[in-house]
Amino acid sequence: MEIKSDIQIAQETKMKNIVEIAETAGIDDKYIETYGQYKAKIDYKLLEDMKDKPDGKLILVTAISPTPAGEGKTTTSVGLADALHRLGKNTMVALREPSLGPVFGIKGGAAGGGYAQVVPMEDINLHFTGDMHAIGAANNLIAAMIDNHIQQGNSMKIDPRKITWKRAIDMNDRQLRHIVDGLGGKPSGGPREDGFEITVASEIMAILCLAHNIDDMKERISKVIIGYTYDDEPVTVADIKAQGAAAALLKDALKPNLVQTLAYTPAFIHGGPFANIAHGCNSLMATKMALKLSDYTVTEAGFAADLGAEKFVDIKCRKGGLKPSACVIVATVRALKYHGGVAKAELNKENLEALEKGMPNLLQHLENVTQKYGLPAVVAINAFPTDTKAELDLVEEKCRKLGVNVVQSDVWAKGGAGGEELAKNVLDLCEHGENNFKYVYPLDLSIKDKIEAIAKNVYRADGVVYEMNAKKQLKRLEELGFNDLPICMAKTQFSFSDNKNLLGAPRGFEITITSIKVDAGAGFIVANAGSIMTMPGLPKVPAAEKIDVDNNGRITGLF
Amino acid sequence: MEIKSDIQIAQETKMKNIVEIAETAGIDDKYIETYGQYKAKIDYKLLEDMKDKPDGKLILVTAISPTPAGEGKTTTSVGLADALHRLGKNTMVALREPSLGPVFGIKGGAAGGGYAQVVPMEDINLHFTGDMHAIGAANNLIAAMIDNHIQQGNSMKIDPRKITWKRAIDMNDRQLRHIVDGLGGKPSGGPREDGFEITVASEIMAILCLAHNIDDMKERISKVIIGYTYDDEPVTVADIKAQGAAAALLKDALKPNLVQTLAYTPAFIHGGPFANIAHGCNSLMATKMALKLSDYTVTEAGFAADLGAEKFVDIKCRKGGLKPSACVIVATVRALKYHGGVAKAELNKENLEALEKGMPNLLQHLENVTQKYGLPAVVAINAFPTDTKAELDLVEEKCRKLGVNVVQSDVWAKGGAGGEELAKNVLDLCEHGENNFKYVYPLDLSIKDKIEAIAKNVYRADGVVYEMNAKKQLKRLEELGFNDLPICMAKTQFSFSDNKNLLGAPRGFEITITSIKVDAGAGFIVANAGSIMTMPGLPKVPAAEKIDVDNNGRITGLF
Repeated sequence: MEIKSDIQIAQETKMKNIVEIAETAGIDDKYIETYGQYKAKIDYKLLEDMKDKPDGKLILVTAISPTPAGEGKTTTSVGLADALHRLGKNTMVALREPSLGPVFGIKGGAAGGGYAQVVPMEDINLHFTGDMHAIGAANNLIAAMIDNHIQQGNSMKIDPRKITWKRAIDMNDRQLRHIVDGLGGKPSGGPREDGFEITVASEIMAILCLAHNIDDMKERISKVIIGYTYDDEPVTVADIKAQGAAAALLKDALKPNLVQTLAYTPAFIHGGPFANIAHGCNSLMATKMALKLSDYTVTEAGFAADLGAEKFVDIKCRKGGLKPSACVIVATVRALKYHGGVAKAELNKENLEALEKGMPNLLQHLENVTQKYGLPAVVAINAFPTDTKAELDLVEEKCRKLGVNVVQSDVWAKGGAGGEELAKNVLDLCEHGENNFKYVYPLDLSIKDKIEAIAKNVYRADGVVYEMNAKKQLKRLEELGFNDLPICMAKTQFSFSDNKNLLGAPRGFEITITSIKVDAGAGFIVANAGSIMTMPGLPKVPAAEKIDVDNNGRITGLF
Repeated sequence: MEIKSDIQIAQETKMKNIVEIAETAGIDDKYIETYGQYKAKIDYKLLEDMKDKPDGKLILVTAISPTPAGEGKTTTSVGLADALHRLGKNTMVALREPSLGPVFGIKGGAAGGGYAQVVPMEDINLHFTGDMHAIGAANNLIAAMIDNHIQQGNSMKIDPRKITWKRAIDMNDRQLRHIVDGLGGKPSGGPREDGFEITVASEIMAILCLAHNIDDMKERISKVIIGYTYDDEPVTVADIKAQGAAAALLKDALKPNLVQTLAYTPAFIHGGPFANIAHGCNSLMATKMALKLSDYTVTEAGFAADLGAEKFVDIKCRKGGLKPSACVIVATVRALKYHGGVAKAELNKENLEALEKGMPNLLQHLENVTQKYGLPAVVAINAFPTDTKAELDLVEEKCRKLGVNVVQSDVWAKGGAGGEELAKNVLDLCEHGENNFKYVYPLDLSIKDKIEAIAKNVYRADGVVYEMNAKKQLKRLEELGFNDLPICMAKTQFSFSDNKNLLGAPRGFEITITSIKVDAGAGFIVANAGSIMTMPGLPKVPAAEKIDVDNNGRITGLF
């Protein structure tokens, strides 16, 4: 059998006009701004006009710790939404929008896979409706205004060595990680160390994803700390008067983007902050709109349940007043065997011993979701042809001990039809599941105590160690009065610990905080456990070499 | 009387839905991709489907050498189109799209002015349909792939000291003019001197504006020289295999953007290359589409008639097989007095002596247009309330000696109604004007002879001097076989000479070529007469400080 690529499947599907999809979703024409035939932005006014309508149910899709074997979280989210839609439920899916940079690196597309995709996938993976570029422009306008202030006399006495605001570009470009700019003499600025982040790592992205409306977004941008003076006083965006122009650049980017799945389920694809240095979920505005419009909203959080789901709960739900009704944890038998120590090349063989050894990773995530976050959960095994019955039985047996169902999901190959059992389980959890939704920590703990709560309760670390630098930064943040913010942990996604090689469910480790800073605009404290790369590079053979477009505008090579 | 700002006037106008405007222009629904209610991209297929329809008349709007007093070329272009439209003529206007960077600097908006504007002006001045960002992304993907090639082993032996391809950003950011990137050790690239240009200065912009279709654009991108090997051999984009992905990023940007004037005249706003280091006209594709759709297409060229119009003739018309029917030369009495030596603060006073002294600037442009480019011309005096009858009579008397009419244009205050006399003159020129359209030089001259032809015939220089560096570069370009390309002169726009302080119509000067390079993708030789700034900076008080957006998305401060 010929296996079709994602882009082939996507291009073979006849999409509906987005106005028709909007109608399915119950969106009045007056809120719709179409971008071509298959994309639309939805006006924020809809949220205000619908504020008295009760919210639908919110379903979070998360996963085990990622491995090179792949898990398929987005694919499962899309497939689950399609399955609910098939079952006659008024459903929407709300997902992050992909960054352009990685598309040209290793990754290719990022809009689901197989028969569980959002389309038009080429547009979604390339410029889409321009949100990433708008975020980059807002970020870089702030940067230009900072250096211009210094160039024009520096009346605020900004210390060029203490500017924390970086420039941003939506490209995998390691050459821009560390630069010295302002060379070339007085007319061209002053030399200082600087660097670029990929756009999704910008605090502007986190702000856009947490803002309630334009005023709130502008207020948050105002508060962003861009650096410090020679006297170590923080300098904000408001001080350099950039918040109005930055918000003007973002006015359309703040509007959720409506697209469709291959099965015509309405989908919001909006916002995509990093899941380590930021909170890793699609925009609050898109989630809230979906909750108003549909009875069931499926959404996902970045990386695994220790990172993305924890932040979804402690940052996004808390800031947005959201209460999820159920949680799906995606795993694959292959990935669990990888956690059990099997090499990537050997994953296709049955190996119950390795599977059993890898299971604690899933079980710890499961425990976290059900007990630490208090959500009813189901495990979705994203099916591979090589999975054996014995393997699936083993997973099921272990999970049932925690009172959690395991269902196979075959949405990659079958679309919504392959996710009906999962959908039925989810519907049951929404109706009858035990829901004790709670945060991992209260905001009024000290910063240290909040970090410890996450490290001990979610990661199962023995404790938290602070490097000298982090201690100093922590003290300064406390002095500046940033005590009551939630924590955004930035650590490796591959392990519960801060060491990417400790797979499974490690014990007997400590979390080392190397640095700590406040994202005063986004409204969280970022605690770095190790160094997090905010500007990726391209691989030896970039995916870009294979991407092409013909004279009719048809794109190939986005796999 | 309260004087309304451009943005006030624009926001008070009730726009028509862009689908209705497209209908006026005779564009079938199937070619339209709407971007919200007031913007649309038009599919290239229209050009192919209409290829047998004869072209309408092409009217070029150019100007005297710019001064701080302002001339109003875009305003006149829009007003003239509105006037033709009022007279019942099937008219379109094709203009450049503004760059984002300068909007935040001194300039504010750039979509005409007063009652002669294209709208929605906020969108046009901000992200519009994303073309600038797409061009930046394509430019920067190429840059990232060059450095990645070096990082991954440099099998092509690219000399990092001889990379000519710069990164691009659509921002006035002097701090990025000269940088050292690739710092931070081996995983983050190798240190080298580098720099950013503003996006409109990228060769990608010039290519997009000269391409006939996607295949042609891709072919041109392939040919771009990005640097040289250690053995001094040119390295192209094709060598680093980036042309397919770059073209994929540009597939929508290549489609002309349809908007409307305040008087509902259909307008293409598409492409905006620099008028010094590039050719300074809107896209060939937009002009060609407008010619197919309308009987009269009004278009403009950058800066004055010595720079923009010369390139319009020798580069754009030659490459596109276009033949203009008439030319409008915009001047103001104020600007002519400035050319006559009056300080900016004194321009409101009648000063016939200074006006007479400044007139040669206009007259030389007029001579160039009518005799060197062979086009029938009319002078449009963009009216100011301070203009006196004696002043206007003087201008008229001098121009009539060259057989050219002078008409007052009052489109800023009155819209199309203020441009009817101009429109009638233009219609007369199209019908009865003497048209001996010709290029300034044939392509088969040597590079030196072509440069000399422009310098002597258009600028009236005594000769051309080459600095040592330029001589070497010229020799290398000849060796590489780039002899048959047109010349893109990069010199100051403020003077016919290469010295910005020589106003009026200077004589007795030489043009000094400081460097010379090939834009092999765009398909021209860039000869630099002096150093041209390709990355602007922000002023002491950036316009951005005043730009704001309210909670309904209404933008203010874009004047």
